[in-house]
Parts: sequence; structure tokens; C-alpha cells
Amino acid sequence: MNRQILTDLLRKRDFKAVRSILEVMYTVDIAALLAELDDKEMILAFRLIEKAKAAEVFAEMSSSMQAYLVEMFTEKELKELLDELYMDDTVDLLEELPANLVTRILEQVDREKRAQINTILNYPEDSAGSIMTTEYVDLRRTTTVREAMEHIKQTGIHKETIYTCYVLENRKLIGIVSAKDLMTMDDDLTMDELMEKEIISVTTHTDQEEAVRLLSRYNLLSLPVLDQQGYMVGIVTIDDAMDVLVDETTEDMEIMNALSPSEQPYFETGVFRHAKNRIVWLLFLMLSATLTQTIIAHYEAAFTAVPLLVSFIPMLTDTGGNCGSQSSTLIIRGLALDEIHFGDIFRVVFKEFRVAILVGAALAIVNGVYMVIRYRDPMLALLVSISLVATILIAKMIGCVLPLFAKKLHMDPAIMAAPLITTIVDVCSIMVYFQVATHLLGLI
Amino acid sequence: MNRQILTDLLRKRDFKAVRSILEVMYTVDIAALLAELDDKEMILAFRLIEKAKAAEVFAEMSSSMQAYLVEMFTEKELKELLDELYMDDTVDLLEELPANLVTRILEQVDREKRAQINTILNYPEDSAGSIMTTEYVDLRRTTTVREAMEHIKQTGIHKETIYTCYVLENRKLIGIVSAKDLMTMDDDLTMDELMEKEIISVTTHTDQEEAVRLLSRYNLLSLPVLDQQGYMVGIVTIDDAMDVLVDETTEDMEIMNALSPSEQPYFETGVFRHAKNRIVWLLFLMLSATLTQTIIAHYEAAFTAVPLLVSFIPMLTDTGGNCGSQSSTLIIRGLALDEIHFGDIFRVVFKEFRVAILVGAALAIVNGVYMVIRYRDPMLALLVSISLVATILIAKMIGCVLPLFAKKLHMDPAIMAAPLITTIVDVCSIMVYFQVATHLLGLI
Repeated sequence: MNRQILTDLLRKRDFKAVRSILEVMYTVDIAALLAELDDKEMILAFRLIEKAKAAEVFAEMSSSMQAYLVEMFTEKELKELLDELYMDDTVDLLEELPANLVTRILEQVDREKRAQINTILNYPEDSAGSIMTTEYVDLRRTTTVREAMEHIKQTGIHKETIYTCYVLENRKLIGIVSAKDLMTMDDDLTMDELMEKEIISVTTHTDQEEAVRLLSRYNLLSLPVLDQQGYMVGIVTIDDAMDVLVDETTEDMEIMNALSPSEQPYFETGVFRHAKNRIVWLLFLMLSATLTQTIIAHYEAAFTAVPLLVSFIPMLTDTGGNCGSQSSTLIIRGLALDEIHFGDIFRVVFKEFRVAILVGAALAIVNGVYMVIRYRDPMLALLVSISLVATILIAKMIGCVLPLFAKKLHMDPAIMAAPLITTIVDVCSIMVYFQVATHLLGLI
Repeated sequence: MNRQILTDLLRKRDFKAVRSILEVMYTVDIAALLAELDDKEMILAFRLIEKAKAAEVFAEMSSSMQAYLVEMFTEKELKELLDELYMDDTVDLLEELPANLVTRILEQVDREKRAQINTILNYPEDSAGSIMTTEYVDLRRTTTVREAMEHIKQTGIHKETIYTCYVLENRKLIGIVSAKDLMTMDDDLTMDELMEKEIISVTTHTDQEEAVRLLSRYNLLSLPVLDQQGYMVGIVTIDDAMDVLVDETTEDMEIMNALSPSEQPYFETGVFRHAKNRIVWLLFLMLSATLTQTIIAHYEAAFTAVPLLVSFIPMLTDTGGNCGSQSSTLIIRGLALDEIHFGDIFRVVFKEFRVAILVGAALAIVNGVYMVIRYRDPMLALLVSISLVATILIAKMIGCVLPLFAKKLHMDPAIMAAPLITTIVDVCSIMVYFQVATHLLGLI
């Protein structure tokens, strides 16, 4: 389906055809298509979508489009939209809207829903509470399979996910039953007989990444969220978890490459915003590099005596940077996947030490042979190779230890990646290099 | 549950207690616990797990544990295990096992299952075919909701996912019905009236990442896989998709940081393997850096005349490397998330150009002010700041263009990340620096 066809049909006012097209399209594709229209066409097309589907399309839209629609909607349209919108999508919407539109929306929903919205809005950013939905199927201990199926038939259509049902007693979660059980088990069994009593759950304040990790580890479709008092308040669903997983990895990759994380896609971010996201880290790293300047200036006598020394600096610092970022990447990723913990620090250091020796030896030999052939100066070759081994050792040690300490100090380990490691390793490797040079070549 | 308790109970031969414990534990946790036991205790404990659950625990185990168990199993035990194991887990197992054990397994399964296994094993690595399972619920056009529910009750317990049902006609997929529809719609409706006819599907040869992207985009729980002739052959389920998503991102991060990707967790990879995964890239990058050596050596006259010039090299090359990796990271990630395509190349270049100007200006000003204060040499400050702007421009252009071309040439864009960009940018920035220096300071 392309934009031109839709625009033509809208101009011809052939709304019937537009309606038929929108009826068979997937919500996410409709949202993408509407994003290509101009504002007037967009709202016209949006009004042609059938009510329940329109809410789903709305949930897939960018926040600027959502804001525009909310602004243009009549009271009646807004009310209809909010009735159909799932709780987590409503909250997402409110988090992005300007304040005057938030007020407009809160006036439209009933008191109970408003209370729920306010509670969710107050959970910390990136917590399980902030991404949960409050709609789920709840059953009682004594409900039978037949009654449960009947209950779902009556009410289930409005629940975001009905494939995992929660058995509650005095608002506390006492068991979990899957729709698979309901569909395949004997009609007269009660929830008490069927339910899984070993419950995997999180609290509203649990980090959303932890919630995603649990969903993935236990192959769940949804995860119950309890409040601080242990009462069940909502669920995190697998489709939201997938989105969180993608967003969190993007954020990690950005931080690991000297970018301030941004939630907007590349093209939707303005040039100034892009520049701002990049300048902070670059300035910090550039100013840190003044330390390297001081050190190099200090060894002026060495490299004016043997100018060739200078030409190996970039190779040494790059190799150091690469070695350090290899180690830090493995540790940062291992921490994120919960495969490595701070308690493993000695195992990690010992492993990286041995790897560094092997890697250092291999590179030093290749470099030594190459330099002897090219420069016919064994002493110079020895000097660079020794510096190479030392640099690799230092880089790997720094690269593996810093992310672990960051984690221990409740900082994001992703900060301790290539850019910062490179800057630190530069200082060390240049000092080692000139130190070895002055001794080995008898300079100064 | 900790290891010591289990070991003690096993030594006391209190199998009843062990059985009770294993009964309430989650499969993934049992697998983790068994991994801590020695081989004999492990197989003893494994035999105490109830049959159907044992297969799930088996599927969660590391390939070395699986190989050990297959080797120790009696024919009868092996047969029982294979009967319970889902098709995709069986295939995963066979892909990792040594050849003699593969033969042993293929002898145990019936001819039909063997044919299925062989087909899946032949699909390309990382294709949808290689991760799909062949078990799913299939219905006919004329089936009613009541009949469908009855059918699932009879057979569904053996299907990996029953929440999405596939309506087939002559083995071709003609529609999709969710369990939610079955549970909430009128009993007498037929599949023909209920089913979604706009089908999202992949072929056996589609890249697994594309399958994951579709599952996520359309919020699906499973995705149908068709063969080259368009017949339905299996489904990719959301839990496998989550694993693929995590593995693929880890792989991207590793490649982006000069590591040969490895599928084993950090601690399960030996020191030699770790060293091997790192040396390849390091050697390549180290040897590429010889170009920088040649260039610096060429400008010997310049820096022996003004030795201070040398001290700014690391700051320049690091800033260039960081700027380049910022751009390449955004493009690599945008390509992976399908937000950026090769056709966008001019928009990307134009955007990065403007960002580079802003970032370059900001850094040049800060650097200029700092240098004038510190060295009281406006000419030197001007020289370094001009080089800085040029370096940033070059770095951002290279950083954004290379991943796009890699994609166009069907290479992995992740290769064009920090390490390679840094090496290329080094050469450019050092040439620019000394070129500007010779002109501005009137050297040579």
C-alpha cells in the first residue's frame, strides 16, 4: 500500500475504498502510512479507521502525531479513543504529551482510571511499574476450568493478554494458570488443582531490564507485577518486553560509543539534538587527552633524538584501545546478560591476564619480525614489541576491571567502554613506551 | 535451592525429597543447578525428573551436558527423551552433538521425524528454517470454534504453541486464528469467518533476524514459515525469537569491538579460544597501522622543527576515532532496526555533514581557547583547531558511509565500526594535520 494511492482516494472522497483498505492493513503499517500524509489528510484517514482498531493504530504512532490528534479531536472522539486504549498505551501517551493536553485527557477518563494512571505515572522511569498494564484476567481459587473459560468469553476481549491468568486471594497473587491449561484440561478441575504455585514476579520498582530478563529466562508471555505491600497491580507483557530489550541494547551501544542515548530514531532527531548528544562526551574525552599532551611533551628529548619513535605512537595506542575495548565489551555484555557478576572479579582478571599474555606474545612476534625486516634495527623492534606487550596487558586489565567496578558502584557499566578505555590506555601506553625507550636506547 | 542440599539428599539416597524439589522448580533453574553437580550426581538427579519435564530441562542444558547424557542413556531412555523433545530443540541438540551420537539419535526416531530433522538441519545457518519448530495447531476452513477447541483439547498439549492456529488448505496457509478468538467468539462460527487473511510469513531461507523483526513489529507470538513452494512447514516462536535477538545483538557488539563473535558465554570459553577470537582483528588493525607509521615518518622534518606538534597526535586521532564511531554506531544500529536503508545515503551524508560542522566548531573553539591560554601561541592553536574540524568532518563522513556500503555489498555493517574507522581516520587526520602544519607554520 503506498501513500499516493491513499492520497488520491482521499482527494476523490472515496471513503468507502479507504475504509476497505484500512480494514485489511495491520495497525503498525497503517501508523507508518499515516506518518507520510500531511496533517489534514492524516486526521481524515484516521477518522475512517474502525474504533477499536483506531486505538491500536494510535498506540503505534509517534508522539508528535499523537499530540496533534489529541489537539484536533472533539471531546467525544477523545473519550472513544481513551475507552479503547490499553492502560500502558494511555500512560505512554501521557508521558509524552504537553501539559495542557494531559489535563484534557485526564478530564475525559473516569475517576478509577485516573487514579490508576496517576499511580503508574509516578513509578520510576524504566521500572516495571512504568511499563506494566493494569488489565489482566484474574480468577479465584475455587473457579473451575469451565467457569474460567466462561469468564474469559465475557470479559477477555478487553484484556491485553488472556494467555496467562492470575489466581488472586484478597488481592494477593497465589497462583498462575495458562490458557493452554484451561484449553486442554478437564472442565471440572478448579484453579487450586491446576495452578502453578511457584510464582515468578517483580515489584513495581524492579528495573525493567530485570523484568525482561525474567520473561526471557522463563519463557513467559507475561510477568505479574506486585506493589510494595505484595498486592498484584499489573503485568508486563512479552511484546513490551521485546521493545524494552531493543531500546536498552540501543542505549548500551550508544553509551559504549560516546553518544548520549536518544530514544528517537535517527531521522526523527534534529541536527542540533544530534550534535548535542555527541559533543558532551567528545569534549570530556578531548580535555582528558591534554594529559597525554603533557606526557608526550615531557619526553621531547627522546623523540627529537630518535624521531622514528613518534611514528609508532598511533599503532601502540590504537592496539591498546582495541584490546581494552575487546575486554570491556565482553564484560559489559556479560554483566547485562547476568552471566558475570562483581564477585567474579578475580576469575575475570586471571582469565584476561592469560589472554593478554597470549595476545601480546602473538602481536609482539609479528611486529618484531616486521620491524626487523623493514627497519633492520633489532633494538627498535624489541623496544616497540615490549611496549606492545605491556600496553596490551594494561589495556586488558583496565578494560575488564572498570566495568565491574562501575556495576558495583551502581553506575551503568556501558560507560566504561572503548572511548574512555582508549583515553586511559593512551596515557599508560605512551608512558610505558617512552620509559622503555629511555632505558633501552639509553636516551636522556 | 542450592547445590549442597541436593548433593546431601542424593548421598542419603532420599530420592523422594529430591523428586519433590525438582517437581516445583522451574526447568531453567533445574538445568542451572544440575550444571553445578558432578557427572554422576547429575545423571542421577536427571533420572529423578518426571519425563515430560525432563525433556524441557534437557533443552535448557549446555551442549556438553547434553552430549554426556546422550552417551550415558540407555536406548529406552533416549527414546523417551526424544519423544518428549520439541522438534526445534531436537535439531539444536543434533547441531551440537559429535557425529557418533547424532547417528545414535537418528536411529531412535521414526522415519517421519528423521525426515523432518534432516530437512531442518539442511537449512542455512541463521535462517528461519533452522530455528523453526514443525509442531503447530492446524485447522481447516470449515472447522467451527467448538470443533477447534475440541481438537486443541485432544492434541494441543503436544504442540509447542497453541495460541496461534493456522488454517490450511492443501498444505497452503490461508488464514490465521488466535486462541483469543477461539476463546471469546461464538462457538458456531467457522474458521473461514474468523480468520485473519492478511498473513505475515517468512520462508525457510529468510534470515532469522528478519523473522524476529516481523514478530516484534506485528506483536506476534509465532510466525509461520513457508517452504520455497509456499507450503507451510513450521513456525518460529516468540521465546526463540527473544534468544535470537539477544544473540544477534551480542554478536553485533562483539564485531563492533574487534572481536570474532562467539556463541559461548564468557566463562565457558577457554583462554586459547578467547585469544584466538581477539588476535585476528588485532593483527589486521596493527598491520594496517603501518601506513600511519610511513606517513608520520614522512613528516619527520616538521615535528623535529616543532616537537610540540607530536603531543597533539593522540588527541586528534582519538577525537577522530570517537566521532567516526559515533556516526557508524548510529548507522549500524539504524540498519539493524530497519530504520535506515542504503537509499537514504544522501540524507544521511547531509545530516552528518551538518552535525560534523556543529560538533567541529564547538570542539575547535574550546580547544583553541584552551591552547591559547596554555601555550600562548595563537598560530599553534589555529593549526590544531583547523585540523580538528577537518578530522571530525572526515571521520563523520567515513563513519556514516562505510556501514551503508557494507550493507549494499551484503556484508555485515557491524564490521565498519570503531576499530576499523579509527584506523582509517588515523591516516586521514595525521595527513591533514601535518599538511596544515607545513603550510601554516611555513615548515619544510
